Amino acid sequence: MEVLFQSKGGKIMNRIITISRECGSGGHTIGKMLAEKLGVPFYDKAIIELVAKKSGLAEDMVEKNGEYTTPSLLFNLSRGMFNANDKSLLPLPEQVSAYQTEVIRELAEKGPCVIVGRGADYILRKREDCFNVFIHGSTEDKVKRVVSEHNIPENEAEKHIVSRDKKRAKNYIYLTDRNWGDARNYNLSLDSSYFGIEKCVEIILNYCNI
Amino acid sequence: MEVLFQSKGGKIMNRIITISRECGSGGHTIGKMLAEKLGVPFYDKAIIELVAKKSGLAEDMVEKNGEYTTPSLLFNLSRGMFNANDKSLLPLPEQVSAYQTEVIRELAEKGPCVIVGRGADYILRKREDCFNVFIHGSTEDKVKRVVSEHNIPENEAEKHIVSRDKKRAKNYIYLTDRNWGDARNYNLSLDSSYFGIEKCVEIILNYCNI
Repeated sequence: MEVLFQSKGGKIMNRIITISRECGSGGHTIGKMLAEKLGVPFYDKAIIELVAKKSGLAEDMVEKNGEYTTPSLLFNLSRGMFNANDKSLLPLPEQVSAYQTEVIRELAEKGPCVIVGRGADYILRKREDCFNVFIHGSTEDKVKRVVSEHNIPENEAEKHIVSRDKKRAKNYIYLTDRNWGDARNYNLSLDSSYFGIEKCVEIILNYCNI
Repeated sequence: MEVLFQSKGGKIMNRIITISRECGSGGHTIGKMLAEKLGVPFYDKAIIELVAKKSGLAEDMVEKNGEYTTPSLLFNLSRGMFNANDKSLLPLPEQVSAYQTEVIRELAEKGPCVIVGRGADYILRKREDCFNVFIHGSTEDKVKRVVSEHNIPENEAEKHIVSRDKKRAKNYIYLTDRNWGDARNYNLSLDSSYFGIEKCVEIILNYCNI
């Protein structure tokens, strides 16, 4: 089902919603609900499969290197030595990032969709039809969510959240030169603990297509 | 006029809206429009007058030291030597900050209101009846706004904006240990260039009192 969004100037155009989110903030659920309500594809882990297919790398290597790792200092120092056209010469996080960029740009070209994570807000920054959202929440709520939804033991939950978000932030700043979670990267940032998941979906639906 | 806000749990309680904003983003106008629509007091520069009155300091010293200056390194190193109860012994930015904190807490105690700037989101962080908003915008729009509203020459506008926001960020991180503009400090962050001023007011009005 093709959904058309109304742009500011009244011109009809497709729209892509990117959701960046803290671990446990409910951003994934919000993205999924949005895609269902809009009748558009939802891309989250599906991107990992597509990158794995394109690159020939195993899915777990793509997942680990796509959002949670940064290249080594040694690689940073020797960047100029690599040929950017031959991805197989790049260290894994760079390789995955290059394929991920290609996959996300292709998905955006295909039509309206919701994309969660993987720096899609940055990768698609030159498109004018993207609505970029950041979802965050209280530690208490995030802990509850990772315990119930990710099957993480309660006594490890907070550490798990902090570790994942720290890795996301490092990966993001490395690839984009921007601070992950800075409101200025997104059109809309929402505190899911304040609003609740349904209200977040409602706000995005009401205002993404002004 | 006393306005009552509905809390999440259905309990009626007063609410305070704090607006943090990039220079030129329209946050001041948004705050003023909100206060008018809600029929509650709007505090922006009025805080400077109140701090000046309370402290005996001149208004321009309060303005300069309240949002745009941080204490010297020497003071930071010698913090322990000061008596926190005697504000007159503190360096100016600390003095102003201490009086500003008192004034903002007193204003919040008095009843519903809209407060722009001056780290009110942090100062009132222990209250449960605050709705914290951050407003940002594109450089292009911010330049246009400071030229037309602040009477800044066009060729100096961008430098003026960057300088003011840099000082705000330094002052905020010094006083709060938080990054100014990080979405996680606020319940709602809005890109005024994307939504426009009226829509920002509408979103806040529609969702501040869930």
